[in-house]
Amino acid sequence: MAKSWATLGVDLHVEPTGSGVRKGLTDALREAVRGGRLAPGTRLPSSRSLAADLGIARNTVADAYADLVAEGWLTARQGSGTQVAERTVAPQGPEPAQRRREPSGPAYDLVPGSPDLASFPRTAWLKAARRALTDAPHEALGYGDPRGRPELRAALAGYLSRARGVRADPDRILVCSGFADALTLLGTVLRQRGLRSVAVESYGLDAHWNLLHRSGLRTTPLPFDELGTDTRDMGGARAVLLTPAHQFPMGVPLHPDRRAAVVDWARRTGGLVLEDDYDGEFRYDRQPVGALQGLDPDHVIHMGTASKSLAPGLRLGWLVLPPSLVNEVVSLRAGGGWSTGVLDQLTLAEFITSGAYDRHVRAARLRYRRRRDALVAALAARAPAVRATGIAAGLHAVLQLPPGTERSVVQATAWHGLAVHGLARHRHPDASVPPLDALVVGYGTPPDHAWSGALDALCRALP
Amino acid sequence: MAKSWATLGVDLHVEPTGSGVRKGLTDALREAVRGGRLAPGTRLPSSRSLAADLGIARNTVADAYADLVAEGWLTARQGSGTQVAERTVAPQGPEPAQRRREPSGPAYDLVPGSPDLASFPRTAWLKAARRALTDAPHEALGYGDPRGRPELRAALAGYLSRARGVRADPDRILVCSGFADALTLLGTVLRQRGLRSVAVESYGLDAHWNLLHRSGLRTTPLPFDELGTDTRDMGGARAVLLTPAHQFPMGVPLHPDRRAAVVDWARRTGGLVLEDDYDGEFRYDRQPVGALQGLDPDHVIHMGTASKSLAPGLRLGWLVLPPSLVNEVVSLRAGGGWSTGVLDQLTLAEFITSGAYDRHVRAARLRYRRRRDALVAALAARAPAVRATGIAAGLHAVLQLPPGTERSVVQATAWHGLAVHGLARHRHPDASVPPLDALVVGYGTPPDHAWSGALDALCRALP
Repeated sequence: MAKSWATLGVDLHVEPTGSGVRKGLTDALREAVRGGRLAPGTRLPSSRSLAADLGIARNTVADAYADLVAEGWLTARQGSGTQVAERTVAPQGPEPAQRRREPSGPAYDLVPGSPDLASFPRTAWLKAARRALTDAPHEALGYGDPRGRPELRAALAGYLSRARGVRADPDRILVCSGFADALTLLGTVLRQRGLRSVAVESYGLDAHWNLLHRSGLRTTPLPFDELGTDTRDMGGARAVLLTPAHQFPMGVPLHPDRRAAVVDWARRTGGLVLEDDYDGEFRYDRQPVGALQGLDPDHVIHMGTASKSLAPGLRLGWLVLPPSLVNEVVSLRAGGGWSTGVLDQLTLAEFITSGAYDRHVRAARLRYRRRRDALVAALAARAPAVRATGIAAGLHAVLQLPPGTERSVVQATAWHGLAVHGLARHRHPDASVPPLDALVVGYGTPPDHAWSGALDALCRALP
Repeated sequence: MAKSWATLGVDLHVEPTGSGVRKGLTDALREAVRGGRLAPGTRLPSSRSLAADLGIARNTVADAYADLVAEGWLTARQGSGTQVAERTVAPQGPEPAQRRREPSGPAYDLVPGSPDLASFPRTAWLKAARRALTDAPHEALGYGDPRGRPELRAALAGYLSRARGVRADPDRILVCSGFADALTLLGTVLRQRGLRSVAVESYGLDAHWNLLHRSGLRTTPLPFDELGTDTRDMGGARAVLLTPAHQFPMGVPLHPDRRAAVVDWARRTGGLVLEDDYDGEFRYDRQPVGALQGLDPDHVIHMGTASKSLAPGLRLGWLVLPPSLVNEVVSLRAGGGWSTGVLDQLTLAEFITSGAYDRHVRAARLRYRRRRDALVAALAARAPAVRATGIAAGLHAVLQLPPGTERSVVQATAWHGLAVHGLARHRHPDASVPPLDALVVGYGTPPDHAWSGALDALCRALP
């Protein structure tokens, strides 16, 4: 490797290899193109600008460029400057690693967890982004507050209070990068406090359990019955992770008595309830369930995201923390470098305060309710043996199957071009509840035009 | 707490407290306003829409609204609907926690680490955002590839190869949330591989050392002399964190012999070099230093961010990984939920490929070079005893002070309204190099119009 690792050009890093400025530059450029380091189509700096950067005569650069154009490595066209030629021969350098090719996926994706990405409100979002960036003070672009931008925390406090009954103070809100980030932060704090395990629901997402395991915590499942998760015997756990408004994946709300009981437990023992309010915005019945946090903001941590209401790709989530946890969580976040881009934060704040968020959620709710209704109607007509439950809210339904048939039905759905999960994969490995045979059908993911086709394929796969 | 925690209204969460629908709704709304849960200025849903959500008569809602308007809690105006009144009395509910007030800061911030936020290219960024979001496929808004968007990884591979001499393949690039996120990921992987310590430079950032400590690693400082950091005796460490292009904070590039030596060490022992290329774009001399990674992409991890070239608030950084590390780092990231919003990723990709990034960096380089020149001229004229070093590149300079004077000069700068760091705080606690007295002066942070004032205050504070 060359000792004199000189760089010719401020934006163009090349190694001159020979003697003589022109030859050195020509060789270095040729080598960079040959090796693939300068990709076909790359625009080179103007000869004037490169010469100035290198402190050499402009003609020397122009001559080197001309040599390489003559050799076919570069192309020069009036108006578009000098570019690396689009060669048809393969570069002689090492090939870039073969791009991974995904096997062709299923025709319809009914795995729960993602909203309809085709209905992301691009125009309204861009409008909010323009207004937010135009209005932002310069300091907003700096490292800033580890809790996130004050504009967003104020907007979230207003929204969560109004729409979800959360008792929210902007000072106790922490903006984070989606649910996984939030749960990792909380898991780390709980472990630092000396906790060894967290009680979880018998049914849930293994990805969430694994996040807690990575923080050094065990997960112990609680019993589950028709009233929801039973928190009467916590088995010594001092924290519990719940989906009170809409149990994932079973789809039922936690019974009012159970809600009261878990809050009583937390008060009596100083325990903490981690409330995963993942799809609280999407409720189709007339008695939707407010946030558990409203019952006891000192013991319940409210956790939400924009992943279901807008898009997971935004990576925007939030924690509403009890006063006793704020310092620990914020200093952990401050020490680790925080992670949510301020432009999206400012845009979401503008999106909420302008009313665009409410409008989007209302429109999405209507769309998903229609899908839900079509699912229920199709099942009644074509698969009357299958009972759909957990359908009052959210973006998925549970289709209860005859005992012993889950595995064969999941296989049949794959044959019909569907990606669907069976309930078994959402059952905690240590759960004591008797296994149920069911499909968990997400109806958020397919775009509108694909929904009737997906439904048809699903009905054909059902017993 | 009420057992029947019913929600009246899909976007409006209230608890009816009495009997009778109208009275229940009126009381619940009044309580929500009184307690501050519905903030002054909040727009309420139309009576039609709330009535539909609640399944009650529209007149009942209209009557409840009218009652509360009469009581002064709400206001109704033609065209703008019903809103919570802007009251002058304090709400009777618990006060929101007192907003923290920062003590008034110094007049001029010369702490290194932040670019000039006032020159963030807002218009060009918005233009790129519009194009990026308009062109993005729907699937881009989903959870996606834990390495980050392919558009950005391709753009970075081209840019880093062209401008920094990095051997970059998009498949080996991982987009992350700034340097802290990158170092935390790498620290975790090194710890998983069984490493117990990482060699670091005698001078650096304690925040970075602390990130490694949090991953369970010790940091052991290497000697430092006029050729830069001396890596000849690694003391058994199997990884080293370096700033080869522009040592932070001393400002010197690593000598070519030392560059060769550390790569030889890595090859001989299977060691890893973590290359922190934090301000590689900003070089003012004619022999800028290319990325060390170009010498040995199998043993050097290239780490960069947009925090100095654009703004820290973007939280955009990247790792170029050796092939042997890709799977470990990517699976760690995939398991933890990744953290960088796709919209900013797509926007940066568009910003780079359109040439806007090059234009911005060139303009910024010119601006910083002028500041640097003004600093050097002012020191020569007004503080000839102070020698500025490390000025060939970057956004900061080291002002060498007479022995024993650093502490008093730092105090004097504070008296003159400046925030400046002494070199002592950047010295590793276990470093064996003799302490030097110096100031580390960042010239990126002040906006252009404040620079001459900052310089003047600095010269007055110097001996």
